[in-house]
Amino acid sequence: MADRLTVGVAARLSRYLQVLTQAKKMGKERISSQEISEYTNINATQIRRDLSNFGRFGKRGVGYDIDSLLAEIRKILRTQGQHNIALVGAGRLGAAIASSPIFAEHGITVAAVFDSDPAKEGRVLGGVTVEPLDRLDELVRERNIIVGVLAVPDGAAQTTCDSLVGAGVKIIFNYSQALLTTPGDVQVHTSNPAVELLYALYFHLT
Amino acid sequence: MADRLTVGVAARLSRYLQVLTQAKKMGKERISSQEISEYTNINATQIRRDLSNFGRFGKRGVGYDIDSLLAEIRKILRTQGQHNIALVGAGRLGAAIASSPIFAEHGITVAAVFDSDPAKEGRVLGGVTVEPLDRLDELVRERNIIVGVLAVPDGAAQTTCDSLVGAGVKIIFNYSQALLTTPGDVQVHTSNPAVELLYALYFHLT
Repeated sequence: MADRLTVGVAARLSRYLQVLTQAKKMGKERISSQEISEYTNINATQIRRDLSNFGRFGKRGVGYDIDSLLAEIRKILRTQGQHNIALVGAGRLGAAIASSPIFAEHGITVAAVFDSDPAKEGRVLGGVTVEPLDRLDELVRERNIIVGVLAVPDGAAQTTCDSLVGAGVKIIFNYSQALLTTPGDVQVHTSNPAVELLYALYFHLT
Repeated sequence: MADRLTVGVAARLSRYLQVLTQAKKMGKERISSQEISEYTNINATQIRRDLSNFGRFGKRGVGYDIDSLLAEIRKILRTQGQHNIALVGAGRLGAAIASSPIFAEHGITVAAVFDSDPAKEGRVLGGVTVEPLDRLDELVRERNIIVGVLAVPDGAAQTTCDSLVGAGVKIIFNYSQALLTTPGDVQVHTSNPAVELLYALYFHLT
């Protein structure tokens, strides 16, 4: 795969990766395009087309070998390596993020946790000690972190984002609702479960 | 708007809704397509086209009136009403969800919280008392809840999902990583921040 994937293909592969990882964890060895379709809501024909593009053909009645498909998709998405992320905010949400096994399963390590509240300093979240914000620049650089996760109140989000960007972070996952301003080479992903829910409701109600 | 929106249009409108809600909270009264574009990564021309389809025209150098645009999008997405949701799981993530202002801002009320752990029963999360699972069926029916949020461990997800569906829930937000099986008229949305992050990394690294 010398070419860059389109956004659509990369999004679908990411969803296959999620389903395959979980199916493997549940002890399954093979999976059909129909099963992947049920879990992703992606059309089974589309799934077969995507996977055959990468030289993977499911056998009728047998399906795809999960291990080899996982390895292939990880190679294509270049996600085999380990990635360090910095988490800012050690409140309820930060604690939930740091203690979740979801990241570790995909080779993502919460390598640093910061909080502005001195009372939280020194606590251990997901195996990592909570550090004060004034160590952010130093530790993010030292640990080669390019992904930052913001689990801070809206009012603190832009300042925290600026500190992360200043330290070299290129991808921000924003769990606050603040509208963040960043340089053009920094991607911001803002999560809003309420808006996703309204969107789901729309299709339910109409 | 007699016609049902396509998935793409509804997704974009949901993102405009998110940005407009936040811009209003920040005290802004007007916003340009260029600003909406910066916050959503959606092309400004596309934004202008979407909004002009609904009879909204921004004025050059002045932009759109946020209040009236918000009202219009809410009407189109039919999200003006109040929606009750049930949350299952009063652990770290559940607590973060219940105490977040994000839902309330969009007319979504966490109307019931359940947990299997008797030690959590009777606690108050986001103003709602944690109830035992054996009251789920009764309370979900009584409160007309069609949206359930799963903040439970993977191993408990399918059983919990079945109970919610049995009580009439049609939309499941799954924060576990379990692959859930549901009847055809029930939508499942599984959130996986790790996979979203790998996807973002792909575009950063290539």
